[in-house]
Amino acid sequence: MAMDHAAAEGDHLAAERAAARFDVEAMKVAWAGSRHAVDVADRMARLVASDPVFRKDNRTMLSRKDLFKDTLRKAAHAWKRIVELRLTEEEASLLRQYVDQPGYVDLHWGMFVPAIKGQGTEEQQKKWLPLAYKFQIIGCYAQTELGHGSNVQGLETTATFDPKTDGFVIHSPTLTSSKWWPGGLGKASTHAVVYARLITEGKDYGIHGFIVQLRSLEDHSPLPGVTLGDIGGKFGSGAYNSMDNGVLRFDHVRIPRDQMLMRLSQVTREGKYVNSDVPKQLLYGTMVYVRQSIVADASKALSRAVCIAVRYSAIRKQFGSQDGGPETQVLNYRTQQSRLFPLLASAYAFRFVGDWLNWLYTDVTQKLEAKDYSTLQEAHACTAGLKAVTTSATADAIEECRKLCGGHGYLNSSGLPELFAVYVPACTYEGDNVVLLLQVARILMKTVSQLTSGKQPVGTMAYMGKVQHLMQSKCAVKTAEDWLNPAFIQEAFEARALRMAVNCAQNIGQAANQEEGSIYIIQHHIPFSLLNCTCSVLFGINCTSDDCAPCRFL
Amino acid sequence: MAMDHAAAEGDHLAAERAAARFDVEAMKVAWAGSRHAVDVADRMARLVASDPVFRKDNRTMLSRKDLFKDTLRKAAHAWKRIVELRLTEEEASLLRQYVDQPGYVDLHWGMFVPAIKGQGTEEQQKKWLPLAYKFQIIGCYAQTELGHGSNVQGLETTATFDPKTDGFVIHSPTLTSSKWWPGGLGKASTHAVVYARLITEGKDYGIHGFIVQLRSLEDHSPLPGVTLGDIGGKFGSGAYNSMDNGVLRFDHVRIPRDQMLMRLSQVTREGKYVNSDVPKQLLYGTMVYVRQSIVADASKALSRAVCIAVRYSAIRKQFGSQDGGPETQVLNYRTQQSRLFPLLASAYAFRFVGDWLNWLYTDVTQKLEAKDYSTLQEAHACTAGLKAVTTSATADAIEECRKLCGGHGYLNSSGLPELFAVYVPACTYEGDNVVLLLQVARILMKTVSQLTSGKQPVGTMAYMGKVQHLMQSKCAVKTAEDWLNPAFIQEAFEARALRMAVNCAQNIGQAANQEEGSIYIIQHHIPFSLLNCTCSVLFGINCTSDDCAPCRFL
Repeated sequence: MAMDHAAAEGDHLAAERAAARFDVEAMKVAWAGSRHAVDVADRMARLVASDPVFRKDNRTMLSRKDLFKDTLRKAAHAWKRIVELRLTEEEASLLRQYVDQPGYVDLHWGMFVPAIKGQGTEEQQKKWLPLAYKFQIIGCYAQTELGHGSNVQGLETTATFDPKTDGFVIHSPTLTSSKWWPGGLGKASTHAVVYARLITEGKDYGIHGFIVQLRSLEDHSPLPGVTLGDIGGKFGSGAYNSMDNGVLRFDHVRIPRDQMLMRLSQVTREGKYVNSDVPKQLLYGTMVYVRQSIVADASKALSRAVCIAVRYSAIRKQFGSQDGGPETQVLNYRTQQSRLFPLLASAYAFRFVGDWLNWLYTDVTQKLEAKDYSTLQEAHACTAGLKAVTTSATADAIEECRKLCGGHGYLNSSGLPELFAVYVPACTYEGDNVVLLLQVARILMKTVSQLTSGKQPVGTMAYMGKVQHLMQSKCAVKTAEDWLNPAFIQEAFEARALRMAVNCAQNIGQAANQEEGSIYIIQHHIPFSLLNCTCSVLFGINCTSDDCAPCRFL
Repeated sequence: MAMDHAAAEGDHLAAERAAARFDVEAMKVAWAGSRHAVDVADRMARLVASDPVFRKDNRTMLSRKDLFKDTLRKAAHAWKRIVELRLTEEEASLLRQYVDQPGYVDLHWGMFVPAIKGQGTEEQQKKWLPLAYKFQIIGCYAQTELGHGSNVQGLETTATFDPKTDGFVIHSPTLTSSKWWPGGLGKASTHAVVYARLITEGKDYGIHGFIVQLRSLEDHSPLPGVTLGDIGGKFGSGAYNSMDNGVLRFDHVRIPRDQMLMRLSQVTREGKYVNSDVPKQLLYGTMVYVRQSIVADASKALSRAVCIAVRYSAIRKQFGSQDGGPETQVLNYRTQQSRLFPLLASAYAFRFVGDWLNWLYTDVTQKLEAKDYSTLQEAHACTAGLKAVTTSATADAIEECRKLCGGHGYLNSSGLPELFAVYVPACTYEGDNVVLLLQVARILMKTVSQLTSGKQPVGTMAYMGKVQHLMQSKCAVKTAEDWLNPAFIQEAFEARALRMAVNCAQNIGQAANQEEGSIYIIQHHIPFSLLNCTCSVLFGINCTSDDCAPCRFL
């Protein structure tokens, strides 16, 4: 929006940057979390950008096969550099992040290793983790089946204990029981953590995890009884097509008993099913961890999209020419700003709420280890809700940024089509967003219903305890500047959120059954919840209701 | 949703079809418009489906080059079949539609030929159309430039009349004046209708169309002074990557004077610029035509997406199993229905409003030819508004259908990723949707401001004349069944639309300037306009305001 010497010469980006009215270095540190984090990120980004093996400019032009080879090459090269440069775990993780190409290593480090750490006994960890750390085995995470995604309890693969051989027989009894989707499964993995129904002594004990070898460590061919393949092309060019999402079927494959992950429960030599004294709630800690990392990723994806759209808007000029003079930078149109800047603000909001979720994870883990489950429900609501809100908003925002780049956003060279295609599965994986939001709604409704009984809500729902005040409070803001006072903003959010929740509870109280209630929530709250009312301060979108204080000012 | 013998045997689609409570054949006829239309469509669909040259199953797996070759092969084969079978124009157009692969023929038939028909003199039509009809030349439409899309008046390419040679010199004076995006330009076209600033006698007369030969008819090489290329990969695999969208630069390329399209204005032998007596408003007829066909296409794209999602929902089962019995078809969850069925309804609504727009086109054309411009503004608002509403809703709906197919929607084999990628440019081309909606809003605001002056609104805005009644009317509906009476529905729409328009006019009346007013409209109306209040009957989404009659019932 600056108009000075640099702009007159045509370097609009330099002019905009020179016009910043805040300390850019300080903002970098705030974004990254610390000066150290900025430095490491800069160093790893340069390492990737300067290495021709990591080039990305041709990614959308490669055939599927060449793209997959390119992914293998990058993964191997990244590993080589990590070893050569003796990178720390923090550095290695950032390097992989900047390589920015979905591949089997994501599942190996992100799911296979954590599953063994979280669900394996100490012995199992001692045996399998060193192999995984040195890449002597490559692991994936085989949970989803062709017929079962959200309904994990409905998985059909069986693991039947056979006391004669002291092992399990892994089997795919139906077509729908085929493992379907696991990343890294189609081509790369040698092993998988396979989720299957544990059957022993004729009884079905539900879903448990098993370490199963899939391919030979000699020649990488599938082991007897194992049928494997790639499930084909996915959304976009580039994007997740670099990943070998796979299909897997078992025909009575035998594994030793000690390859059942036995931290939470065991099958004895005799075939007895025994629970250990480790609380099952610990598994929630893993879920909180995975979802907080998804929220952090939302901020990264959104900030990239917004960065592209803001730069484009600074350079692109259209209309507004006086007497044949230069046209107006698109960035200077308030119609463009009103669509773009709320997305920019959201990227920062998601960044900082991601940090808070990280704190929540630490807090929940400590409490769980002390067998304190009092905040578990609220922590679940926070992570589920924030996972859904941030991923839905980010997916929509990437597409909005693409549209804000006009026709040019449709070119792969803008980077936005690939970013959208690689991002949108986040709305589905680790909990479908609509399913998650309904879970949050139910917890909110339960909390509202308990307000009259004197039960005090905890954590982020504590404000609901002020129900008497919030249902009647009038906003004390007098001038637009008053909104710079966080206390006013917070009370506006609290009042609006509580009033919506109470209103919703009253309405679904009239619903005939739970499903009717869900419909009400989906129709009235979910489509608008991200951008309406309570979020008007954050997202800059105003509602038109009279009881929404921010809208009287913004 | 049926549960009978077929379902028990696992053929859910047959069971659902058998349970239809309406006359499927009658619905087919209503959708297609006539029995004849159903028959022609069926015949052309079978012709394409049964011909191996037209196979589509490998489309997302081809490299860009192979995909382009495949497009050429299909276009040539389609042409051959059209000639061999002596297909009518109606049949040929449907055949091309079912081939369903963007390619240069779309621009040749859809833009190049109509431009010559609409803007060429009779002589010019006599000379060029037969060449185009026989494919002796291949034409594209070169309007958009690297630096100019929405702002057509800002195009920079020049066509300078040179009286010495009795011709024009076509030139690209800057980098941003490069033609950028035209489909069919990158590889296929021999000719283009090029839009350029007409300069004669030292004066700039603004943008006019010129027929320019680009490539040799002997060896297809670019003519001297012409630089051409493909602008690279676009969103998705398959999708518009079958199209050779191109870049084009001119270095003082000479064309004869009679290749200026001269129906509306001419340059004489002496270089005088003369307007003909053909009214310029006729050009609006073309715009109405193009936009009504975009609305018709929205219904086609949406119906395909919904068809995929409905079939998937019938077959997919998840949760709800009692005692190990079969799980519930996803289609039977009202949470799924509440997201899916409004999209199904929209596909029908868009289909029928497309028919109405077709009527409007005929009506406007007849009036224009009689020099009656009285309904032009209203017709413009209808086509602009419906183009924006239907394309935005369809783009969002395709992505929603993809999400409604869970993880599987992300596979190319679902058809939805390619459908989304090929569809979304409709939100940008032929008028950016936000720009168009603001135009509609301005016309609505102007109409509201004139209500007190006694000027009667016309056409689709005629209901606004009932302002006294509508601002105060209470909905007469007593039971849910009353909504089956169209008169109630119509009045609910009218009341809500008028109240929103009047409310908006009052609010932007307080805005400091037009841009502030636009911001108000974008923030308060555009994000919600498609799915809010007035559309609650149509789309099944309810608002929460007390003055919205439908919401008290649905």
